[in-house]
Amino acid sequence: MSYTAEILCVGTELLLGEILNTDAQFLCQELSALGINVYYQTVVGDNPERLERAVELAKSRSDILITTGGLGPTCDDLTKQTLARAFGKKLVFDPVSAQRIRDYFERRLHTGQMPENNLQQAMLPEGCVILQNDWGTAPGCIFESEGRHVVMLPGPPSECRPMFTHRVAPYLQALSGEVILSRSLRVFGMGESAVEQLFRARMDALTNPTLAPYAKTGEVELRITAKAADEAEARALIAPVEAEVRAKLGDLVYGADVSSLEEVVLAELRAKGLTLSCAESCTGGLIAKRLTDLPGASAVFKGGAVTYWSQAKAALLGVPQELLDQYGAVSREVAVAMAEGARRAFDSDLAVATTGVAGPDPDDRGNPVGLVFIALSTPQGTFCRRADRSMTRERVRVCAAHHAFDLLRRHLGGLPLELNLVF
Amino acid sequence: MSYTAEILCVGTELLLGEILNTDAQFLCQELSALGINVYYQTVVGDNPERLERAVELAKSRSDILITTGGLGPTCDDLTKQTLARAFGKKLVFDPVSAQRIRDYFERRLHTGQMPENNLQQAMLPEGCVILQNDWGTAPGCIFESEGRHVVMLPGPPSECRPMFTHRVAPYLQALSGEVILSRSLRVFGMGESAVEQLFRARMDALTNPTLAPYAKTGEVELRITAKAADEAEARALIAPVEAEVRAKLGDLVYGADVSSLEEVVLAELRAKGLTLSCAESCTGGLIAKRLTDLPGASAVFKGGAVTYWSQAKAALLGVPQELLDQYGAVSREVAVAMAEGARRAFDSDLAVATTGVAGPDPDDRGNPVGLVFIALSTPQGTFCRRADRSMTRERVRVCAAHHAFDLLRRHLGGLPLELNLVF
Repeated sequence: MSYTAEILCVGTELLLGEILNTDAQFLCQELSALGINVYYQTVVGDNPERLERAVELAKSRSDILITTGGLGPTCDDLTKQTLARAFGKKLVFDPVSAQRIRDYFERRLHTGQMPENNLQQAMLPEGCVILQNDWGTAPGCIFESEGRHVVMLPGPPSECRPMFTHRVAPYLQALSGEVILSRSLRVFGMGESAVEQLFRARMDALTNPTLAPYAKTGEVELRITAKAADEAEARALIAPVEAEVRAKLGDLVYGADVSSLEEVVLAELRAKGLTLSCAESCTGGLIAKRLTDLPGASAVFKGGAVTYWSQAKAALLGVPQELLDQYGAVSREVAVAMAEGARRAFDSDLAVATTGVAGPDPDDRGNPVGLVFIALSTPQGTFCRRADRSMTRERVRVCAAHHAFDLLRRHLGGLPLELNLVF
Repeated sequence: MSYTAEILCVGTELLLGEILNTDAQFLCQELSALGINVYYQTVVGDNPERLERAVELAKSRSDILITTGGLGPTCDDLTKQTLARAFGKKLVFDPVSAQRIRDYFERRLHTGQMPENNLQQAMLPEGCVILQNDWGTAPGCIFESEGRHVVMLPGPPSECRPMFTHRVAPYLQALSGEVILSRSLRVFGMGESAVEQLFRARMDALTNPTLAPYAKTGEVELRITAKAADEAEARALIAPVEAEVRAKLGDLVYGADVSSLEEVVLAELRAKGLTLSCAESCTGGLIAKRLTDLPGASAVFKGGAVTYWSQAKAALLGVPQELLDQYGAVSREVAVAMAEGARRAFDSDLAVATTGVAGPDPDDRGNPVGLVFIALSTPQGTFCRRADRSMTRERVRVCAAHHAFDLLRRHLGGLPLELNLVF
């Protein structure tokens, strides 16, 4: 059967706009991947009456109620108190949870002094499944009552996310008696609406597995989700749809179940034992920053030169002044010289370079916002790609960095470096 | 009088987790700054029945209902249809809006071919205030009915935000007959809980103006908000509280109504006509990236060297190999040599440098995660600050960049460079 869920986030800080509700997006994504329909998502403050009204409403219209927040001592354990009352359950002391909370504070505080009010977190609804919290102090819980499944999770995303993934998702899967499996294909080189147009008919026709697009800045994720009796069967359902997507998109698909182009590039560089450097003008450090966001980047990334001024392009990368004078800093010739200069200066196997107009204004030679040259230098020669889509400053920069990583992953994978963007 | 508002976000893409609900946070913040209480925030999908039920509920309990999304042709103008019906209003054709929509497509498409269904966006509730959309096609609207104020805004944040700021906020202010003014003080060098502790009693005691803290990664924002009959009176209410905060925090306050440390640094550099460069190891391009996120950075920022490998520190910045051998890459000596090397290589007036252990693992000399040296080189000499707080990789990097900008703004402002962080 198909279940409906409702998400209820508790916290005055959410209603004051002090924090962004990333828990809600995460839970919506995960529930959708589990094949559970979410029809409502509500936020209420730390107020017992309003929370109670929201719970009564949820009880009347949804099979599964998932709450986030309101479990800690600072809010008097509002959520547990209110939900236990709404479903006629008593809170009982759980000595195992209490010991875990004591241990947590001992490890953290060294002094061993724990504010006693923390122990109220060990009071849990009678007969519930306790969700052990290995990422913080407040345990979560699940109980079934009046035909409803009630799940309570802590609010901090660093606790809510792993608690859902490791404790709640298996429970919800068991509920449906099915296995739900997703596979995410990442696409660079075709815009969201073109992808949508290409697959619209198939997306509408498919029911198991489903196929859904998620737009990211400058790229698209296509997620295939299957329900089946076991994992092997789910995989078997996904495989032909994945093959179909790959047949249509070819090498625009840069990876499956990966999180970014740079992750793919870094893994390939490590596998091949190659080193990398970069030279950045319009991206201004973004390529280096994205690479070094990843732990382990130091194994292959030697460094980069952010040469914002022409003077720096000449001084650090040896770009000839004649090139800068003749073609201007935003040119194919300078991009190539920057990439080759970086490879020389850093003594790396490969190097990428960007030069372009990020905006908001055209450059002093009248080059328009969005014009970017992206070069890749290898022992076999240097290749340069041109992008010229007018966008906001942020998007121009993000997409220029995407192009640099795309050139790298194509070179490393032995694919053609040319790319005709489709929008 | 004090109004209560309720936010109703319409969009199946929100319930699927395809997009993050940043509109809700923005509106909560802005409404709170206007002194309007938000008690509920709800998300429903593109479904007329569920939207209608949510509207009925909102009508029964809130003075102001603000919707986002569901205004475009792809969802059959769901929100306008449903709200007009719920409040017994007809939709009437507005020729001015229709012409604006036609013009918008003509400018964008050049071909002048506009899908005709776009014109339904020009159907608006009778007697409403039309909110002209200068940032997209769908106009918003406000109407008053049955003692309720209903506000409809488009969903895309790039339209929702300016529409609220320029069209809705003045309407809501006029409603209360008061002026509400906020002033935001930005603080670096004291943790959120220390700031909270320092001002807790005052925050609880103050009612007009109010004082509220907002935590950001590695810094804190303190917002003072006053209600008054006019702007001058509101300013007069804010001034003594601002003076009080500044007296307690001293030079930890780095700016008022600014958005980041780098914005302050960039403005100061421009005002003084000074140039800057940087040398980054553990921050890996983040300092350069943050500077070049800002339009106009090229006026003062010459460039940076991301010297991830020791070899690059020697080759690009001239850091002596003996220093690297004797003290290791993560040392005061190397940070100083990097900053001085960058100032030389880029021929800039000032330079900052970072070297440290971002994690997740200690470095090969056993230096712990979080140990970072941040140096500033000036014509008067070089200063180095040490930070050693163990945090996640991301936080270590963000805070190291904060330190670099903090050194710069202190130098530019003639303030002491020493800083004892308080948590």
